[in-house]
Amino acid sequence: MIELDFKKGDGLIPAIAQDYQTGDVLMLAYINEESWNETLKSGYATYWSRSRSKLWKKGEESGNRQVVKEILIDCDEDTVVFKVDQIGGAACHEGYRSCFFRRLKEDGEVEIVGERVFDPSVVYKK
Amino acid sequence: MIELDFKKGDGLIPAIAQDYQTGDVLMLAYINEESWNETLKSGYATYWSRSRSKLWKKGEESGNRQVVKEILIDCDEDTVVFKVDQIGGAACHEGYRSCFFRRLKEDGEVEIVGERVFDPSVVYKK
Repeated sequence: MIELDFKKGDGLIPAIAQDYQTGDVLMLAYINEESWNETLKSGYATYWSRSRSKLWKKGEESGNRQVVKEILIDCDEDTVVFKVDQIGGAACHEGYRSCFFRRLKEDGEVEIVGERVFDPSVVYKK
Repeated sequence: MIELDFKKGDGLIPAIAQDYQTGDVLMLAYINEESWNETLKSGYATYWSRSRSKLWKKGEESGNRQVVKEILIDCDEDTVVFKVDQIGGAACHEGYRSCFFRRLKEDGEVEIVGERVFDPSVVYKK
């Protein structure tokens, strides 16, 4: 059984969620040992919320869960890639398919290049 | 000019290097403000080495530099994607195309799925 190196980052390592079909990077979040085990057990990407200091079952509120199709582990065992099927089509809490929906332009400003799938004010009832 | 949020992670944020043609995730490393500015100025992915505590011009030793073709910024401004042209074809110091060259199997062991491009004992003259 492979062991991830949770020590380096105070118990947390980054997990990159990538669309298993398109290869688009959807988001980056952090996992601790508990969320790693929960991901393996449940088959759904489960992170650790740094802001809320709790286990974060991605999509629990919005319904946009991530079915983990494949897991890749890096050479240092301190980063993982979750290749996922993004239920609902949007990973970002702002309603975009990917959290990386902005591209840096030559002039240092950004432009939106991502596709918006839902209106967050409706989904999260803010 | 967009400002990245370097405060959250003690001056460092993760940067995901992704092959701009295949979409493969090649590696994850960290950047601080200095390496971010150097990346923008030089056009080559430049990280901050946590182990050596110094600016890390990726590929300086191996020649496998990363030409940054596009930069994506996430919703929280605390993670970036560098879409790169990986010179030499290998991002990993172990000689693989991607640092994520191992896949987790059902039994908890890993199998090598990545392509080895060079022999690190030759390139780094260990």
